[in-house]
Amino acid sequence: MKEYCGIFGIYDNPNAAYYTYLGLYALQHRGQESAGIAVTDGKRITYYRDFGLVSSVFKSDSLKKLTGHTAIGHNRYSTSGASDSPDNIQPIVVSYKYGQLAIAHNGNLVNALELREKLEEEGSIFRGTTDSEVIVHLIVKSRKKKFLEKLIDALSKLKGAYSLLVMTNKKLIAARDPWGFRPLCMGELNGSPVFASETCAFDLIGARYIRDVEPGEIVVVENGKVSSLRLPGSEKCKKSQCIFEFIYFARPDSRIFGKSVYEVRKEFGRILAREYPVEADLVIPVPDSGVVPALGYSQESGIPFEMGLIRNHYVGRTFIKPEQKMRDIGVKVKLNPIPELLKGKRIVVIDDSIVRGTTSRKIIRMLREAGAKEVHMRISSPPTKWPCYFGIDTPTRDQLIASSYSVEEICKFIEADSLGYLSLEGMLEATCGSREEFCTACFDGKYPVDVPERIVEQSKKK
Amino acid sequence: MKEYCGIFGIYDNPNAAYYTYLGLYALQHRGQESAGIAVTDGKRITYYRDFGLVSSVFKSDSLKKLTGHTAIGHNRYSTSGASDSPDNIQPIVVSYKYGQLAIAHNGNLVNALELREKLEEEGSIFRGTTDSEVIVHLIVKSRKKKFLEKLIDALSKLKGAYSLLVMTNKKLIAARDPWGFRPLCMGELNGSPVFASETCAFDLIGARYIRDVEPGEIVVVENGKVSSLRLPGSEKCKKSQCIFEFIYFARPDSRIFGKSVYEVRKEFGRILAREYPVEADLVIPVPDSGVVPALGYSQESGIPFEMGLIRNHYVGRTFIKPEQKMRDIGVKVKLNPIPELLKGKRIVVIDDSIVRGTTSRKIIRMLREAGAKEVHMRISSPPTKWPCYFGIDTPTRDQLIASSYSVEEICKFIEADSLGYLSLEGMLEATCGSREEFCTACFDGKYPVDVPERIVEQSKKK
Amino acid sequence: MKEYCGIFGIYDNPNAAYYTYLGLYALQHRGQESAGIAVTDGKRITYYRDFGLVSSVFKSDSLKKLTGHTAIGHNRYSTSGASDSPDNIQPIVVSYKYGQLAIAHNGNLVNALELREKLEEEGSIFRGTTDSEVIVHLIVKSRKKKFLEKLIDALSKLKGAYSLLVMTNKKLIAARDPWGFRPLCMGELNGSPVFASETCAFDLIGARYIRDVEPGEIVVVENGKVSSLRLPGSEKCKKSQCIFEFIYFARPDSRIFGKSVYEVRKEFGRILAREYPVEADLVIPVPDSGVVPALGYSQESGIPFEMGLIRNHYVGRTFIKPEQKMRDIGVKVKLNPIPELLKGKRIVVIDDSIVRGTTSRKIIRMLREAGAKEVHMRISSPPTKWPCYFGIDTPTRDQLIASSYSVEEICKFIEADSLGYLSLEGMLEATCGSREEFCTACFDGKYPVDVPERIVEQSKKK
Amino acid sequence: MKEYCGIFGIYDNPNAAYYTYLGLYALQHRGQESAGIAVTDGKRITYYRDFGLVSSVFKSDSLKKLTGHTAIGHNRYSTSGASDSPDNIQPIVVSYKYGQLAIAHNGNLVNALELREKLEEEGSIFRGTTDSEVIVHLIVKSRKKKFLEKLIDALSKLKGAYSLLVMTNKKLIAARDPWGFRPLCMGELNGSPVFASETCAFDLIGARYIRDVEPGEIVVVENGKVSSLRLPGSEKCKKSQCIFEFIYFARPDSRIFGKSVYEVRKEFGRILAREYPVEADLVIPVPDSGVVPALGYSQESGIPFEMGLIRNHYVGRTFIKPEQKMRDIGVKVKLNPIPELLKGKRIVVIDDSIVRGTTSRKIIRMLREAGAKEVHMRISSPPTKWPCYFGIDTPTRDQLIASSYSVEEICKFIEADSLGYLSLEGMLEATCGSREEFCTACFDGKYPVDVPERIVEQSKKK
Repeated sequence: MKEYCGIFGIYDNPNAAYYTYLGLYALQHRGQESAGIAVTDGKRITYYRDFGLVSSVFKSDSLKKLTGHTAIGHNRYSTSGASDSPDNIQPIVVSYKYGQLAIAHNGNLVNALELREKLEEEGSIFRGTTDSEVIVHLIVKSRKKKFLEKLIDALSKLKGAYSLLVMTNKKLIAARDPWGFRPLCMGELNGSPVFASETCAFDLIGARYIRDVEPGEIVVVENGKVSSLRLPGSEKCKKSQCIFEFIYFARPDSRIFGKSVYEVRKEFGRILAREYPVEADLVIPVPDSGVVPALGYSQESGIPFEMGLIRNHYVGRTFIKPEQKMRDIGVKVKLNPIPELLKGKRIVVIDDSIVRGTTSRKIIRMLREAGAKEVHMRISSPPTKWPCYFGIDTPTRDQLIASSYSVEEICKFIEADSLGYLSLEGMLEATCGSREEFCTACFDGKYPVDVPERIVEQSKKK
Repeated sequence: MKEYCGIFGIYDNPNAAYYTYLGLYALQHRGQESAGIAVTDGKRITYYRDFGLVSSVFKSDSLKKLTGHTAIGHNRYSTSGASDSPDNIQPIVVSYKYGQLAIAHNGNLVNALELREKLEEEGSIFRGTTDSEVIVHLIVKSRKKKFLEKLIDALSKLKGAYSLLVMTNKKLIAARDPWGFRPLCMGELNGSPVFASETCAFDLIGARYIRDVEPGEIVVVENGKVSSLRLPGSEKCKKSQCIFEFIYFARPDSRIFGKSVYEVRKEFGRILAREYPVEADLVIPVPDSGVVPALGYSQESGIPFEMGLIRNHYVGRTFIKPEQKMRDIGVKVKLNPIPELLKGKRIVVIDDSIVRGTTSRKIIRMLREAGAKEVHMRISSPPTKWPCYFGIDTPTRDQLIASSYSVEEICKFIEADSLGYLSLEGMLEATCGSREEFCTACFDGKYPVDVPERIVEQSKKK
Repeated sequence: MKEYCGIFGIYDNPNAAYYTYLGLYALQHRGQESAGIAVTDGKRITYYRDFGLVSSVFKSDSLKKLTGHTAIGHNRYSTSGASDSPDNIQPIVVSYKYGQLAIAHNGNLVNALELREKLEEEGSIFRGTTDSEVIVHLIVKSRKKKFLEKLIDALSKLKGAYSLLVMTNKKLIAARDPWGFRPLCMGELNGSPVFASETCAFDLIGARYIRDVEPGEIVVVENGKVSSLRLPGSEKCKKSQCIFEFIYFARPDSRIFGKSVYEVRKEFGRILAREYPVEADLVIPVPDSGVVPALGYSQESGIPFEMGLIRNHYVGRTFIKPEQKMRDIGVKVKLNPIPELLKGKRIVVIDDSIVRGTTSRKIIRMLREAGAKEVHMRISSPPTKWPCYFGIDTPTRDQLIASSYSVEEICKFIEADSLGYLSLEGMLEATCGSREEFCTACFDGKYPVDVPERIVEQSKKK
Repeated sequence: MKEYCGIFGIYDNPNAAYYTYLGLYALQHRGQESAGIAVTDGKRITYYRDFGLVSSVFKSDSLKKLTGHTAIGHNRYSTSGASDSPDNIQPIVVSYKYGQLAIAHNGNLVNALELREKLEEEGSIFRGTTDSEVIVHLIVKSRKKKFLEKLIDALSKLKGAYSLLVMTNKKLIAARDPWGFRPLCMGELNGSPVFASETCAFDLIGARYIRDVEPGEIVVVENGKVSSLRLPGSEKCKKSQCIFEFIYFARPDSRIFGKSVYEVRKEFGRILAREYPVEADLVIPVPDSGVVPALGYSQESGIPFEMGLIRNHYVGRTFIKPEQKMRDIGVKVKLNPIPELLKGKRIVVIDDSIVRGTTSRKIIRMLREAGAKEVHMRISSPPTKWPCYFGIDTPTRDQLIASSYSVEEICKFIEADSLGYLSLEGMLEATCGSREEFCTACFDGKYPVDVPERIVEQSKKK
């Protein structure tokens, strides 16, 4: 049920659907399972959604049918894979008393189940299994009069992460949860307000970045005017931006939470080099997310940087796995080492995180087979010990190697010569921030929003 | 929004999904736009639905995934064509407070709009535009405790036509509206209760026909037991079976409303021959629906029957129409005459009905070009003057040629030498029935259920 | 390797590809496995081909790309099914010394294997396994100078059946083998010469039928002029038109070999009624091919005609067959009886032929189960005893029930009360023809062209 | 007509088709337009080919049908795009006198047209337009007795580039042209001989690299034995390995021509830094091909390396281009700069080559917009002045900016602050090689094989 997602919206632009297509294309890294665009011409919302990458879901034909001036789009990644229901593809488009409504949602709610039960109690009907459908019901069920009041009423009930785009036939609304878990940026393209999960979407369409949608802020675009308001009570919530966006998820050419991902990620590498120095001949990244911290590590340590592992970028969802009996091709489908570089060398390998440890072990074995004399693993984040309930896909606690084993034990398991994790303090220092601004629950278990016991239990069974 | 549909259900059979596939295949004539099957293994309802014929929607793979012992299926025909939303494909499957629910619905409600508005008023959210979704909401919204009570509560609110199959993880329920507009049959296959719109579905799977589900009856199958109850108040409703099912819609090898379609249809022809005799050399049908009444006409009149028009059965939805400038290929894509038969002959042509009159005119012109000396049109039903609001696709009143023109005028318009329509009395006589048993509103405007003014207005605009 | 096929060609028409599409559509009954169209604009031949029905192979897009004024098309049926190679789809388009060449071929050659070996001996390379590819090689390999001389050179080497359309960037040529096995008609549409396997293709596009291409004739269209010549030596060949085209294969609304298929087929029924009269209550056809002879039988005998078996026309190649363990659904997928008609009646069933006998037995059993008191089988052709080597798909001799069993034995096997086959003389009488005009080899084993022993052997193994 | 290609072959392995799938997957960078695999079980060659990436052409189903122990595969890139004919997809599979034959070919012949004309003169028929089809015809047409003699006979006639895999039902043969233009490697997997364009294919399947197939060598695998022979006369040909494989085309983790691509490519950067030093703050690559030389430049110059341009790897063939009127999204679909890195900095940008100069100009403008103070372009190869006739896709001479303009003029055109190209000597030094071993015709116009005037002319028109 955990979901990564990318969202994009544009208001009053003659090429609304095409720009949304480009925006989703730039945000493809945030979700590769399905894509969808909903567009309104002021009278009627039409949409097209399907499983697949943006470039395979949308063809010239299907895009041309999406006529209108205001649009929202959504990329989705879900852990449940191909067996997932088409009813979960977003944007969700419904009709209700006052017309049509489309929403695109990035994030996870911790009280979705509870809200869903309450809604079902009152007679609500659900098609899919996403948290996002709950939000739609809450809006529609609200007894408030005006749409904006209904929306506020609904959002007030939510606990957890949401960066949200809501479209009616007249309005485009962007909202971010009071904790600010997931990013949401605001920009402008030839006078048209635009919204996106990350600024890389603005860069592609040539839009100007204005500012982030603030935690707890609701930005309303209507009649060509942009207005902003605060979700009542949101001021009491502790700012809790997801630091994992910097570590792994966001594109390095994006700015999120007001900072350059590239710069933060490189600083991770620099501080890591100071915290866990080692005598070595080469620094190499596990591409792609390890590249920037590896550059930081190299620059700080003075150890030369090399692309000792080459990544094949053609891997797709449809890759046919080998039969059991065949030789394990493991990580080799994605990564291949350069023996000429590694032979007889002491290597520092930089990766963004260790989850179960098995992939790290395969990489280290592969490097040794390619001739590396020593392999020192450095991780550009602290040990991941706690599951995320706010939108990052993590396994259950007992599958997270760092929740049960010490760094020394992990080092032994992955067969590294040494292992160093960036410290929590170092990580926060790199963002020029503090615990006050970020959610670091996956490292320290301090969840900014209470996670109901049943959600914890449920996540264990998945 | 008018819909023809075919529905099929089977309870507790190891090949539930495959038998439903066969059932839908036999009922393909009732709907060619989309098909779907929902199946339960007692714990979870899964489903597969798509646009297209049964044989193109279901492949071995997709069918194999539908594991379970109880299943319902639905074929749909909609007048809105390919632009129709995937959200309208049935069975509708939802989850709500007490679990999952699937329904397959054939028929049209006259108070769907009103009910929908009331539901929306109370916060209901709709995905598609079908009447059927309203039924689901009414069931879920009912404050009754038990499922069956909820269903009765919901059905009590409906005005109009519904033959309905409802499936939960434990139950299979068949229900028919108190007027009995659309057919619904009950049978048995190796101990498994089965339901279908027409008996031809039973014939294909080798099931035994037991009886029709009665108007206003609700048949419940649960824990291997079949029980029956009446919808309260249903006894006050006038039986109003759709006589058009006999005229055109049902397959001739089916029994519906307790009678053989073939026999009724042939009797139409016999009576027509008595009511509108003519001196002629040949009786020919407009295939396929004209074949059986033409046989009746021929047998009664003694005029030889010939297949003077040959039908190409490969016509599909995807046929590429010619450019405007090209010669009109009109009805020729479907029908081609046999000049050797027709040359110099006086022909009686039998068709089931005349809607706008333009197709009849094309056919008559084609017959004359092929050499017919005289063309006498005979229609195996009375003049269609009023639109149907209960599930048969008819155009608006002003498009129905018989609502504005006399039989003489129509005869002139279609360029026939003579024209005769079966009388209302003759038609009823053929069914061995009376006005007490059938809805004849399309001929006499006497709608068995009040049709709200707005529905009448709306249907004019479509 | 046996193939039914339909071919169509049109010269110098602005809608050449679309008319070819329509022509193939009208000829769909001659081949449902694959379809293709090749078109020339005078400079370059382009083509599109794929597996499937005409209406699924060609979409607006693919048809629009086929720009040009002269086109040929081909429908193919092959017994080898879906495992067949895409290299066998026609028209075959190749480039050689003098440019491009496209051919569409209907028929089977008995010396294809021999010719192929000789060509391979000389270095020819084959892509597929069709006889048709041999013809292309023979044309290209000819040492004659002019294209027409090359073609004559090639055709002179062929033994067996070919109705052929050949297109270069300048010419459209139609040719028919000296025996005239397969039909080929010539017509005219607004001044454009057109060719088709059957006249039903002309009817659909509104073309005027002129005459048949004669056995041994080569019709050349070039520079807007139509000229005709005879294949040297063709006058020595005995005319051997395929009588099975009348019995089963051609559409009843076509004229082939100068006669109306409908009329010939009805005459089969009439004569059959005289040859094998029986006291009975009803005559019913096995639809669709039995319909017209059943009408003849009924008219001659005075026994009423009824459509006692209803055919489901939605059967496609992709129908999912039941698992072994399930009840046999046999012919029921295609045919369903009308019990009300049959109950207690003595039935004459008319079918076009009996191959293995198993289908006939299933039909007869089905009729008895539906209540028939007596079932008398009448076949509108003589017993099929010999395989066809000229383009009709027949099983090997030992699978043809009539080659090993007497009529009495067959009657017993199929469980009929009586069985009567149309006599050879009666059949020829119905065509107003003689053995001099038709190939009747499948009935009497007198092959008009010597069939090499190895071909006979090979056909046994298929 | 220019083609990049990747080829792979494996002999006598139970998972032949799957390993070929993996091999093609690893070689995907050499051709993304189409993919195909042919496999033999010793008796019959079957194949599957289609347009698209390896992972979209082959699904579990299609791969499972390719049963056999020996297989060859082919990836193709062609400049003619989607309009290309399916007849050009490889492997080419034909049948001829002695059975079946499959070939997979990488490279371009300069005398293909001449040979084709001669073959057509003798009656050969061509389906597609590739050079590779000529080779098949030459083999089949040879009057030699044994297959190997035929192959030698055919290869002796070829002028130009070919790395070739030929498969019969008994043999797998690998051959490389006497000049050795394109790479071809030989390896071993659990006793099965394997061949691939690059060693990265061996790495993925876990095969051991043995050696390159030598220029002019023919390696024959039959009856489990590997034998080698030389093409007669091949010793007179000057070794002419394509140096562009090192510059751009091969994967950095491959070894080709006996050297590590990564190491050669980095050495290009090092020497470039010595030849064209500049005072700057950052070295950034144009990814992906500029990454390794940029590392070399950075290491040699001491100027820090940064990933100042981020590449979006989701770009596919199906990307929908914007309408003309919209803002040019140009290279932004692939590349996005990191303004935080570039602002106020003097940048050295490393790219592998400049073709028309327009892309370079867009990149430089993009970098300046992102804040770069100075942009110094460095190219890891000499100016590309001459078209390639041996398999690398280059535009015509007049489109190659370096063939008409001086380095100063190009620098001005691309709006760089300075521009430096690696010298020819420097390039050869980096390969530890000499002009004696490489083809450098694209830089100096010295074609190792005479290019017929008509080929030069023809290439101008494309």
